[in-house]
Amino acid sequence: MQELKLAFIGFGTVGQGFARLLQSKESILIEEHDLKIEVTTIIDKVMGMVVDPGGVDLANVLARVERDGKISNEMEVDSRQMIKDGNFDVLVEVSFTDIETAEPAISFIKAALQSGKHVISTNKGPPALAMKELEGLAKENGVYYRYEGTVLSGTPCLNLSSEAMRGVSIHSIRGILNGTCNYILEEMEQGTGYEQALNTAQELGYAEADPTADVEGFDAATKIVILANKLMNANLRVSDVDRSGIVGLTTDEIKKPDESGFKTKLIASAHRKNEKVNLQVGVNKLTLADPLANVNGVLNAATFSTDTLGDVTVIGPGAGSKATAQSLFSDLLAINDKLTTY
Amino acid sequence: MQELKLAFIGFGTVGQGFARLLQSKESILIEEHDLKIEVTTIIDKVMGMVVDPGGVDLANVLARVERDGKISNEMEVDSRQMIKDGNFDVLVEVSFTDIETAEPAISFIKAALQSGKHVISTNKGPPALAMKELEGLAKENGVYYRYEGTVLSGTPCLNLSSEAMRGVSIHSIRGILNGTCNYILEEMEQGTGYEQALNTAQELGYAEADPTADVEGFDAATKIVILANKLMNANLRVSDVDRSGIVGLTTDEIKKPDESGFKTKLIASAHRKNEKVNLQVGVNKLTLADPLANVNGVLNAATFSTDTLGDVTVIGPGAGSKATAQSLFSDLLAINDKLTTY
Repeated sequence: MQELKLAFIGFGTVGQGFARLLQSKESILIEEHDLKIEVTTIIDKVMGMVVDPGGVDLANVLARVERDGKISNEMEVDSRQMIKDGNFDVLVEVSFTDIETAEPAISFIKAALQSGKHVISTNKGPPALAMKELEGLAKENGVYYRYEGTVLSGTPCLNLSSEAMRGVSIHSIRGILNGTCNYILEEMEQGTGYEQALNTAQELGYAEADPTADVEGFDAATKIVILANKLMNANLRVSDVDRSGIVGLTTDEIKKPDESGFKTKLIASAHRKNEKVNLQVGVNKLTLADPLANVNGVLNAATFSTDTLGDVTVIGPGAGSKATAQSLFSDLLAINDKLTTY
Repeated sequence: MQELKLAFIGFGTVGQGFARLLQSKESILIEEHDLKIEVTTIIDKVMGMVVDPGGVDLANVLARVERDGKISNEMEVDSRQMIKDGNFDVLVEVSFTDIETAEPAISFIKAALQSGKHVISTNKGPPALAMKELEGLAKENGVYYRYEGTVLSGTPCLNLSSEAMRGVSIHSIRGILNGTCNYILEEMEQGTGYEQALNTAQELGYAEADPTADVEGFDAATKIVILANKLMNANLRVSDVDRSGIVGLTTDEIKKPDESGFKTKLIASAHRKNEKVNLQVGVNKLTLADPLANVNGVLNAATFSTDTLGDVTVIGPGAGSKATAQSLFSDLLAINDKLTTY
């Protein structure tokens, strides 16, 4: 049986969700994937830490978090050093990270790759800012860096295109990559004003207290950069995106679909033109026949236009702790697939 | 650089399409995948054969087929023996095969696997009838048998679920798996009678002269058996499907969607209930919010209901020589991925 040791850097919603998923899938992993997973380290700068080379008792840790709101008393620990020296195979990088600088995630990922450890991560900053560098570092060290959860959370998107559609050439991508905007636009189609729709989204936990990243299109812009750089071999940054959000839209501009014959969606797109890839985020009017038109609520979707398959669309959840945990799980199993001969 | 030698058994539309794709992607394979492909054998009981251990000149073979309608004069050759003895790594199994007995494809696949050769195939019969046996044989011999193209042609479906969504548990699948029926139903929604819609489908090359397999739901039934056996660990046969087709439907029963508020689709489905998986093929009325409702023309689609991701839907082409060739191409690259360390 293959054995893989994991270290968590970060133990917020995503980390805890993944720990729960590992627990619930333990017997399936052993029976169907011939794989035994052990967590040896959990470090979170707010939640505390636990290190046990013999295997952390996840049920106990999750119960402690539930009860005390933390794993242990806070402590100062040199996380980078622990990543370098720690006894584990795969770093689960789900730290709380500044989206603009992508730190400390980039440093954590580098420390792991340089010391010959695989990385699975859901932080968007690192692949948006430094994909080629990090992937180069992984290859140099004979390990893998995977980040499916950075776009469409656990809905296959990066893995769909790079693995399930191996060998296709993608000339454009169009996506509904931000569930918050999609929800607000749908409310507005029913006549609700922008402010009220935003308030409801905040009450439901779909939108942050500061909704800027979502409603001004930064989140979608970051994701289309990742998609274009990964799947269309571009080398672009968020500042290269021709970006507008949904702020300032009025219900007059967003008619009911059954009267107007179209749906209003925030679309992130990447189009190859000659040698260049152009990126845009903005509000589009879609005909009802467009597979993206009926992607409702907080669902996400992406359409890939390819040389051999024409258009392929995938629709699924774009957020949520369970779906994001699933992205880490599929990345982990993909790494295990590469490490095993059958 | 990795080198893989290929043998084609069958050189009809699918085989020729794959040969053309290999030609057009030759430099991409070398540059992006570090992979050199050589075809050493092509055998087709009608089109003739060519064997060249130094590498068949595909351009020349395709030109001969274009000009003469065949590769060489017909000949009697023991295909099974050639598969066993031939100097190649991967069998491209695209022979003309009886859908009921799945022969000669099953024999060809077995001969290849038993002699330590990988198999990529688009024939539906073998996985519908003998998936577990063939996969067991592949594993025993340390090789791979892949058949993405048997459902949704090149649109990721088997690979989407088993690879891009690794680790999910699927409790139901609903799909539009037959483009011919989808096209006819859409014509009928516009008021065209069944017979006339079928005639148009035949003129456009969407339906066979004998449309039984499509319009009576056998084709969709075969595909849902493959999906359920592969992705839901079932062990069912086409005769286990509760099946009805689109024959006998009248335009009165299929109202215009903008009047009725629903779309009429032939849906193939698999539902797990307790320990059992139930399979059905039949006409369903879908609300317009269903992602499958707006899958139009000869497009295909499948929705997977899962434990961690809720519903994930993929939409793409379900037929066509280019899309089917793509399925073989992605399977070939997946095998190469398993054979290489990075």
